[in-house]
Amino acid sequence: MKKATGADQSHPLFRQVCEFILNRMQRGEWKAHDKLPSIRLLAEELKVHRLTVFKAYRVLTEDGKVYVKDKSGYYVSPGDRALGDGSSEGAAVSTYSLTNPLSDIQRMPVQYQFSQALIDPNLLPNLFLSDYVKKVFDLYPKVMGTYSSVQGDEELRETLSRHFHDQHRLQLSPQELLITSGAQQAINLIAGIVLGPMDNVLVERPTYSVAMDIFRRAGARLIPVEITPQGYDLEAVEELMRRHKPRMFYMNPTHHNPTGYTVPARQRKLMVELAERYRCLLVEDDPFRDMYFGEKPPPPFFAYDTEGWVIYISSFSKYVAPGLRICAVACRYPFMERLITAKSLADNGTPLLNQKIFLHYYTSPRLQGHLGKLRIALQVHKEIVEEELASAGWEWTAPEGGLNLWVKLPESISVAALFDRSMEQSISFIPGEICDPLGEMKSWLRLSYSFASEGVLREGIRRLVMLAGQLEK
Amino acid sequence: MKKATGADQSHPLFRQVCEFILNRMQRGEWKAHDKLPSIRLLAEELKVHRLTVFKAYRVLTEDGKVYVKDKSGYYVSPGDRALGDGSSEGAAVSTYSLTNPLSDIQRMPVQYQFSQALIDPNLLPNLFLSDYVKKVFDLYPKVMGTYSSVQGDEELRETLSRHFHDQHRLQLSPQELLITSGAQQAINLIAGIVLGPMDNVLVERPTYSVAMDIFRRAGARLIPVEITPQGYDLEAVEELMRRHKPRMFYMNPTHHNPTGYTVPARQRKLMVELAERYRCLLVEDDPFRDMYFGEKPPPPFFAYDTEGWVIYISSFSKYVAPGLRICAVACRYPFMERLITAKSLADNGTPLLNQKIFLHYYTSPRLQGHLGKLRIALQVHKEIVEEELASAGWEWTAPEGGLNLWVKLPESISVAALFDRSMEQSISFIPGEICDPLGEMKSWLRLSYSFASEGVLREGIRRLVMLAGQLEK
Repeated sequence: MKKATGADQSHPLFRQVCEFILNRMQRGEWKAHDKLPSIRLLAEELKVHRLTVFKAYRVLTEDGKVYVKDKSGYYVSPGDRALGDGSSEGAAVSTYSLTNPLSDIQRMPVQYQFSQALIDPNLLPNLFLSDYVKKVFDLYPKVMGTYSSVQGDEELRETLSRHFHDQHRLQLSPQELLITSGAQQAINLIAGIVLGPMDNVLVERPTYSVAMDIFRRAGARLIPVEITPQGYDLEAVEELMRRHKPRMFYMNPTHHNPTGYTVPARQRKLMVELAERYRCLLVEDDPFRDMYFGEKPPPPFFAYDTEGWVIYISSFSKYVAPGLRICAVACRYPFMERLITAKSLADNGTPLLNQKIFLHYYTSPRLQGHLGKLRIALQVHKEIVEEELASAGWEWTAPEGGLNLWVKLPESISVAALFDRSMEQSISFIPGEICDPLGEMKSWLRLSYSFASEGVLREGIRRLVMLAGQLEK
Repeated sequence: MKKATGADQSHPLFRQVCEFILNRMQRGEWKAHDKLPSIRLLAEELKVHRLTVFKAYRVLTEDGKVYVKDKSGYYVSPGDRALGDGSSEGAAVSTYSLTNPLSDIQRMPVQYQFSQALIDPNLLPNLFLSDYVKKVFDLYPKVMGTYSSVQGDEELRETLSRHFHDQHRLQLSPQELLITSGAQQAINLIAGIVLGPMDNVLVERPTYSVAMDIFRRAGARLIPVEITPQGYDLEAVEELMRRHKPRMFYMNPTHHNPTGYTVPARQRKLMVELAERYRCLLVEDDPFRDMYFGEKPPPPFFAYDTEGWVIYISSFSKYVAPGLRICAVACRYPFMERLITAKSLADNGTPLLNQKIFLHYYTSPRLQGHLGKLRIALQVHKEIVEEELASAGWEWTAPEGGLNLWVKLPESISVAALFDRSMEQSISFIPGEICDPLGEMKSWLRLSYSFASEGVLREGIRRLVMLAGQLEK
């Protein structure tokens, strides 16, 4: 489903080099019968060992993508239609390869929607929100005619700065906050500032697949960091930082997507020290913090940072009004200057209307009540799935928060086959390999329990388990 | 103010190579006393002639950025603080250099705002819009809880597809339209799909500076195409396409920003043929079409395209509710597939609320009346500026539409000095060199007459002319 592109020892570097070469071919830069760069040259360009390039060329030769001529070097094979990916039909515009398999799955309409980590719209305070909108128009009659400042509405940033102080004791001025249109835009902007071709980036294994797609588009190499119910193996992380000098570590340490794991407090401080020592930016994506089932999670990594090595992405609008797409990014100067410029290039500012509506709901006394009810509803949803899975022989660690269950199926069931069958039956989920930087984890899948209503959830999971039973070898 | 980065004969390629090297230094990839790549290697990597790299190294050596040692090669000079641009203070995160001088100017609050090509909020139907918002909430009570599809709300795309057919006879299905958060996001997404390091891109001279900033961030080379009141010199464009094989031509051919010029109809068909022949995507940015003062402008380039070589960016929300940030991009498959994926990575879809509000206002009978009034108001604004400039000895071609006047000052006045003085006096405008891919046009400036109210406009221009008189040598 997805080619592996990690770069640790279990996923050798030559695959990255293969993809680099295939990408150039795909874009038509290196055409049929073109001579490819010498091993020495390419090794120098990509800063890899010559043997790595040699191995990549050999694999591509075996695959028929490349041929050898007269001992003079490597050439692009002709007529490989698989490479063209449509670029030779219609306007043959040479493009970068972009992928987003998660979005591809989510774009398919299904009856039993377990692939979207979104809240059931019926659990949101819809009618109440519409009152707030009217209030916004009374307060700011020209809101529709005005652009926001690039960094975001000042009133909203002041409010959030107080919120972060009260909730997590973060010392953050409004100037250290930037408003984006959703957390994904934040990840995209940060990647655009930090990552370039062949840069190394640490990602959890498994992780949010769209972040990987963004980093791959930037040409970066993904280096996996295992995440378990106990958090990270800090010694292993240090070794990766020392060896690969990653520019950043994209992390989602609180009710992690897709696993639901939370990195314990004692690791947070140590990790920030590692980041400082190895000059590796920690990009902390924190959308699930408010959705805990038992105890509140530990403070964000950002709370332990004094030197500006953590960028904190906080996207609470998911639980309030996902349609508004409001997210706050906290970071220190001078990085903030770059982030403002990146945002100015990306879309010149998030719509003011959305910021003002969010602000007024966010400061309302009703918010805490809504969040409390939502937490209970999600826990009920989670328990429905666990009940239906109880007798299936599948394995999972019960999450203490978040929107997803990360489930391991017995070896006797092929998740890929189950995915095909269940899509036919209008049931969607996310196959685990999509979330794995190594493209493995083929026995795993992610079930989002937040979107379907209780009845649909129970019925859909029941059907899914039944389908899996039919596939069992 | 801005380093030139064009690549035609008047702006030699070695400057690009210099910037490439400086950028690596700035990011800290090449540190003090590091040995730089040999001339041969760098020439091969950048696909330029060795003499070009030689010249770049020589210039950098003369500038003290680079030094030569023992005939063994070139090395990075130490302690050049100018290169650091803050990255050595606080968290020394190595970042790509991003610039957006237009946004930097526009972020400064001034009393006489002539740098923003935005509509005076008082000219927008604010109260009327608030009624529409209430209507939207009655129709779609859960709009705030729902994400839009990545491509955009289907109802809106169907409406726009009919609109494009009725207005310009464009045959466009809703599947050939994508909704973005403003035209700038559209430019950014397209650049992300098409442009990579050292790719060539044609841009008008002068042009919208933020588009250049986006293309530069992608590492592309800007190649200027002169635009005059008569349009383009098609022979010159053909020569540029033949010689430089640009991947795309970013154009704004209707009431062009900043000049106000409109490319005549007879050139449009011919240009589309050139695009096809030389496989150069035309990216047609068309935000000013509805703001004509006399005759309606000729049909878009897109209307002449049968093979999918034109991408059409249509951002009418500027005249309706700029705060909504709604823009439509029209293109054919397979490019549309890539655009949807790019949008899914960038922000996963424009907020549904904004799309629905826009849809309902856009289909209202009041829209045409509003646009008619707005055209008259803008023409009055334009004439106020022209009256105040009449006796100043400045030169311009009266625009037949749009929001800007592109003015040439006498040689005896320094626009750079005028800019500094006028900012002190709380008057803003855009210096011409920012709009020039070559960084020249130092006698020009852009005055946006759409944002300030009539009284402020007259008073501010009067003051500006007075300041200029004081600076005259």
